[in-house]
Amino acid sequence: MKIVIIGASGTIGSAVASELAQRHEIIEVGSRSGAHQADMGDIGQVRALFARIGKVDSVVVTAGKLHFGPLADFTPEQFQLGLGSKLMGQVNVALVAQQYLNDGGSITLTSGIVAEQPIRNGAAASMTNAAVEGFVRGAAIELARGIRINVVSPTVLEESLDAYGPFFPGFEPASASRVALAYRRSVEGAQTGQVYRVW
Amino acid sequence: MKIVIIGASGTIGSAVASELAQRHEIIEVGSRSGAHQADMGDIGQVRALFARIGKVDSVVVTAGKLHFGPLADFTPEQFQLGLGSKLMGQVNVALVAQQYLNDGGSITLTSGIVAEQPIRNGAAASMTNAAVEGFVRGAAIELARGIRINVVSPTVLEESLDAYGPFFPGFEPASASRVALAYRRSVEGAQTGQVYRVW
Repeated sequence: MKIVIIGASGTIGSAVASELAQRHEIIEVGSRSGAHQADMGDIGQVRALFARIGKVDSVVVTAGKLHFGPLADFTPEQFQLGLGSKLMGQVNVALVAQQYLNDGGSITLTSGIVAEQPIRNGAAASMTNAAVEGFVRGAAIELARGIRINVVSPTVLEESLDAYGPFFPGFEPASASRVALAYRRSVEGAQTGQVYRVW
Repeated sequence: MKIVIIGASGTIGSAVASELAQRHEIIEVGSRSGAHQADMGDIGQVRALFARIGKVDSVVVTAGKLHFGPLADFTPEQFQLGLGSKLMGQVNVALVAQQYLNDGGSITLTSGIVAEQPIRNGAAASMTNAAVEGFVRGAAIELARGIRINVVSPTVLEESLDAYGPFFPGFEPASASRVALAYRRSVEGAQTGQVYRVW
């Protein structure tokens, strides 16, 4: 299969690329690295990206920013960071990708454990990740030509414990390579509308 | 209790007002009707609203717009309608209300069955309603002074079957008065972080 990975230079993205490159052709996309660059928050850039790449079999997104902070101090603009990046960035990719995927192709997005298991400072993360999962449930029943869509919900990564561990007290971490298996399951499997929890 | 209902002129809002007015003082807010007017998508207007109303015991929101349409034709701007109105409108109310609620007060928001049970043309509705539920899970663990937050997820209303029935084939409708009970359960109960499904 020909697989686009958006966010391929990140901790999860590079593990997904390593996992899938064993059996597939990978096209790495980043905001500033990879074979192609695009800011997925801008649907014009996403359209230009796929116009350059052309038809593919699978699209994986492992990118998206979120603001973390205390609820009492949160501003609408801070919620907007996640809505514009992790949510609408991924939605933009799905909207455009549905026109470039071959029959039976797949889209795999990324949410996170806080969609269901909240943490302090994580109101925007819970909101945004839950939104991604809701979009996937809604889109799955409407995609044409056998195109599938799923979402992977990782727990905190072992590789990110130095930075994020204090936000996730008592949460069992997972290695990026273990999380990458869930993306393989979505890409090479046959299900749609699923939330693959790695926790 | 002194209870603000935003969206009080709507089908659900007026049923909630009838239910709660039997035991409480109700302050009705609408975009164009009620004792006070405010566009909750604009946090400046929400701040001005609560500055006029002052301290209250409970805030209920039964307002918010969504675009419905086929996934293949959806644009980012159409997703934005729900994000700006039903999602960030309700988030704006929660952010401001946390400063005006008396100790032990409550916030009750509104999502919808499509957050979990998708329908055709409903990708934005699934996404937006799931986001509201994610926000409530995240906010519930951070609100101070015993303030609670819950969300009611109604199925399609009996009163709205003429307009929305064809979008919900085989979905069992609920009367607005039955849905209103879930708001009473949130306002007068003691739970927080709950999704009260009326379906």
